[in-house]
Amino acid sequence: MRKVVLAVGISLDGYIARPDGAFDFLFMPKDFSMAPFFATIDTTIMGRKTYDVARALGEVSHGPNMATYIYSRTLPSGKREGCTFTSQSPKALIAQIRKGKGKDIWLMGGGELAREFLNADLVDEIHLGVVPVLLGEGLPLFPSGFPQRDFALIGNRTFSKGLIELKYKRVRKGKH
Amino acid sequence: MRKVVLAVGISLDGYIARPDGAFDFLFMPKDFSMAPFFATIDTTIMGRKTYDVARALGEVSHGPNMATYIYSRTLPSGKREGCTFTSQSPKALIAQIRKGKGKDIWLMGGGELAREFLNADLVDEIHLGVVPVLLGEGLPLFPSGFPQRDFALIGNRTFSKGLIELKYKRVRKGKH
Repeated sequence: MRKVVLAVGISLDGYIARPDGAFDFLFMPKDFSMAPFFATIDTTIMGRKTYDVARALGEVSHGPNMATYIYSRTLPSGKREGCTFTSQSPKALIAQIRKGKGKDIWLMGGGELAREFLNADLVDEIHLGVVPVLLGEGLPLFPSGFPQRDFALIGNRTFSKGLIELKYKRVRKGKH
Repeated sequence: MRKVVLAVGISLDGYIARPDGAFDFLFMPKDFSMAPFFATIDTTIMGRKTYDVARALGEVSHGPNMATYIYSRTLPSGKREGCTFTSQSPKALIAQIRKGKGKDIWLMGGGELAREFLNADLVDEIHLGVVPVLLGEGLPLFPSGFPQRDFALIGNRTFSKGLIELKYKRVRKGKH
């Protein structure tokens, strides 16, 4: 089954961005490559605020071979800019995507959308790139307000500048 | 110099306890031992709420070879129960402890006390035992409200049941 993978960089205190949305503290070490991960996915999903940040960088759609979904309650639904804007439930969207064959699904964030997906128990894997800094304030990857979800550690790798990647998979009791 | 080491177990979403203080989700794998860490410290410091939890378990003082400080604004200061109750500033306490020779200092938590120590930039190392569960709510190890603090990853080890230990040391710009 096509997995939903929440993959993001975070500070050691769990923030994906500073209070104003800046993510200057994140970095991509030379010995780290997104290519192996990109090879496993063909779909990305992000919240509208993450979309705003991505669009400011001019990088929202990853091209015709990557389906891109933007969650928004305020922007009109439909396809444009190489993206599909939607306000349907995460459960309905993932069910729709899974009707087609394909690769895994990258849940890019942010925290509010991650919480919705965790509430619906739709997150199959979590890949965290943990940056060695305490920001002291910011936008959390895991804002409170979802039920306990148990995971299993499936991998960890360290990279230069103290980045450590932690990979977890969802353990659903009675289903594994 | 005697280091202040913030060493605690946390959930993957950064909680040291559930909202009611329960920490049933934490576990100590058979292949993990606190003994090497205990050999490096001779002093523990905790906040009053952590003390309440520890006292309910009957384990506050670690014996005559371990100095134990309890931070409290409400309990009377002074020595009793094998512990020293204090309300002085973290900076003053650490300066006082460092006047004597000895081993490192274990900052046991909780989050509010960790924040005070981070505000005073007194945390030299952080050792996290990260448990592979998202609680969805709880008492954070790093409540917001302190300035950015940069660290360097100095170690990571995995243990059974998906526990991963991450060790960081403080990097103070211009001082290293």
